[in-house]
Amino acid sequence: MTGRVERAGVTWLEYAYGPDLVPDGPPDPSGMWRYRDLLPLDPGPVRYPLPVGGTPLLAAPALRAALGLPAVWLKDETRHPTGSNKDRATALVIEDGLRRGIGTVTTASTGNAAVATAFGAAAAGLRAVIFVSTGCRREKLALMTRAGARVFAVPDGYAAAVDLSRTAAAAFGWLDRNTGVVPATLEAKKTVAFEVWEQLGRELPDVVVAPVGDGPTLVALGKGFEELRRCGLTERVPRLVGVQAQSCSPLVRAWLGEPAATEQLDPGGTVADGIAVLRPATGPAVLDAVGRSGGGMVAVPDDVLRRAVGTLASRAGVPAEPAGAASLAAVGAALDGGLLDAAETVVLLVTGRGVAPTGDPGGPAEVPVAATLDDVERALAPR
Amino acid sequence: MTGRVERAGVTWLEYAYGPDLVPDGPPDPSGMWRYRDLLPLDPGPVRYPLPVGGTPLLAAPALRAALGLPAVWLKDETRHPTGSNKDRATALVIEDGLRRGIGTVTTASTGNAAVATAFGAAAAGLRAVIFVSTGCRREKLALMTRAGARVFAVPDGYAAAVDLSRTAAAAFGWLDRNTGVVPATLEAKKTVAFEVWEQLGRELPDVVVAPVGDGPTLVALGKGFEELRRCGLTERVPRLVGVQAQSCSPLVRAWLGEPAATEQLDPGGTVADGIAVLRPATGPAVLDAVGRSGGGMVAVPDDVLRRAVGTLASRAGVPAEPAGAASLAAVGAALDGGLLDAAETVVLLVTGRGVAPTGDPGGPAEVPVAATLDDVERALAPR
Repeated sequence: MTGRVERAGVTWLEYAYGPDLVPDGPPDPSGMWRYRDLLPLDPGPVRYPLPVGGTPLLAAPALRAALGLPAVWLKDETRHPTGSNKDRATALVIEDGLRRGIGTVTTASTGNAAVATAFGAAAAGLRAVIFVSTGCRREKLALMTRAGARVFAVPDGYAAAVDLSRTAAAAFGWLDRNTGVVPATLEAKKTVAFEVWEQLGRELPDVVVAPVGDGPTLVALGKGFEELRRCGLTERVPRLVGVQAQSCSPLVRAWLGEPAATEQLDPGGTVADGIAVLRPATGPAVLDAVGRSGGGMVAVPDDVLRRAVGTLASRAGVPAEPAGAASLAAVGAALDGGLLDAAETVVLLVTGRGVAPTGDPGGPAEVPVAATLDDVERALAPR
Repeated sequence: MTGRVERAGVTWLEYAYGPDLVPDGPPDPSGMWRYRDLLPLDPGPVRYPLPVGGTPLLAAPALRAALGLPAVWLKDETRHPTGSNKDRATALVIEDGLRRGIGTVTTASTGNAAVATAFGAAAAGLRAVIFVSTGCRREKLALMTRAGARVFAVPDGYAAAVDLSRTAAAAFGWLDRNTGVVPATLEAKKTVAFEVWEQLGRELPDVVVAPVGDGPTLVALGKGFEELRRCGLTERVPRLVGVQAQSCSPLVRAWLGEPAATEQLDPGGTVADGIAVLRPATGPAVLDAVGRSGGGMVAVPDDVLRRAVGTLASRAGVPAEPAGAASLAAVGAALDGGLLDAAETVVLLVTGRGVAPTGDPGGPAEVPVAATLDDVERALAPR
């Protein structure tokens, strides 16, 4: 790493770009760490104990036939330890913590990022302190507490949970894994772009479609592809198409330059809870990345999202949650809108299968409420 | 493959064993197909589209410290496409079908094998016809039907479902994926033994602990390790420890030579539904494999199973279902019973995370009831 710049509201780490930064050997089992020369990591062995990255790029023959898209690919992030691409960011943040001897990691999240943090911290022997909004579903809370995380419900919603988590991280010297605002979360997620390029035989796809909630997944894709170009390994970047749920599509409205109606700003109005974010943490950077790539933004209604979940299962054998299936859900609208052509090489990022506990571990799912740093400190104090 | 013998009630495929049958190159992304010279597969490209096998062997440092077992390893089968080791057997059976041009695969199962078959068939463009007992949980049915499987509930229970599935396979020329009774299911699952040996640097562990329901997982482990010995690659086999839930532990009672009490034969009495099998399909072969290896059988009560689910989550970051956590649950009893020593190299097979649908695809979870082949034929007939 050679420096950092601010770009469209996010911190962008820079490197001494060159073709040697991406290994050209055969695939190896190191997963995301294969790209460590393009990650903010000093030399030394990786200690994070869960394998992350290196997820399959599926040709999905039955899906290709069903859709009439002969060159569509699924980048299957459901194969991660906790079933989503959130495991990448978790791994890099915690690896940094292991190197610096920091014993606690914190995040605010409504779901997958929190579960990834809870399980990743458990594997690494760290404490996870997680802030959720009071509406967080019981089964997700059960999973986090099963992994030993300390979980707090924040009455004033997701934005307040992020504030409290970040304030606590600064006050107590904890690792901050809040998505988008922490550079490492983008750095980790950009490795998806490197993998796609390598898995296509060191060729770029024409288009990559990705779900957009807070936005880092797409912003990181854009950064990854741009870095391949800056390394001199590619000459262009693929068009990026971002997808939001129609009932919570602030960035689609912004992209179209149209004011959002009330019914387009209702995070509770969609089955795709994983991307239902009213004020995306990296909104301007999403619009910047999409614009630079020559792509676009698409909103999809819930019936199309549900159908995409079914199609991924029945035509590709991939168990995705609705937010994870949003890329597939967007294909019809993207074709209609001229954002992609049926003959093009299209990668659909399937971000996650979602998480649900199975069996009954008998753990508690009730968590304490915290509104202030004092509440947190009191609850964590040894008795 | 050079022949087949019957051994302790199962069909055992044999090969022209030699050290060249296991590749000695570096790890590669081909997963289970790396061992194709020890699988019943003719030459030619593998067409099965979901990557299977090559699951991580986790050192789990925090778990080691917590348990005081410095050389315990977790073979993490939760990383498979549908989250369990059932994906291995499904892949091999369907690959065979793709080569022979067979369009339908059938199995009877109470859970993970059915879900693996449904998703695997969907990925490969085959039809799956699945027979469950009428008590099968709604959310599991929802997953199977989401993947497009035709599912029938069989009123007379699991054994009747197996009978009907096998009868239908024979009558209609379908692929039979019924576990244990079909040799390919053992062949696929034995690759776990090869992977463990390679992942330990071509060394054997002292002990491998595995959950036992119908039994093929353990029987296949035994076959895999025996084949490494017959190939001249190893000189011994590790001790195998089989684990059942106390409330459904027919093979533990048989191992101990003690009659089972009623409360030890209640499949509905345990949270570990994935291993609650009253009449294990490969029971004699399990006892044979355990005996030959110098290992043993252990029964674990439900409170210990639940605690093991929690410990895997909170100390290793691995999301297992209760049946999948049975290996860890057995460690205490195995230590007490002299089946393993704390200093030994012990591999705990974590068979699966279990499956649960997330989001709501709006699919049906009610399935037709079938008691006879006629019922099946009528329901599948074009209208």
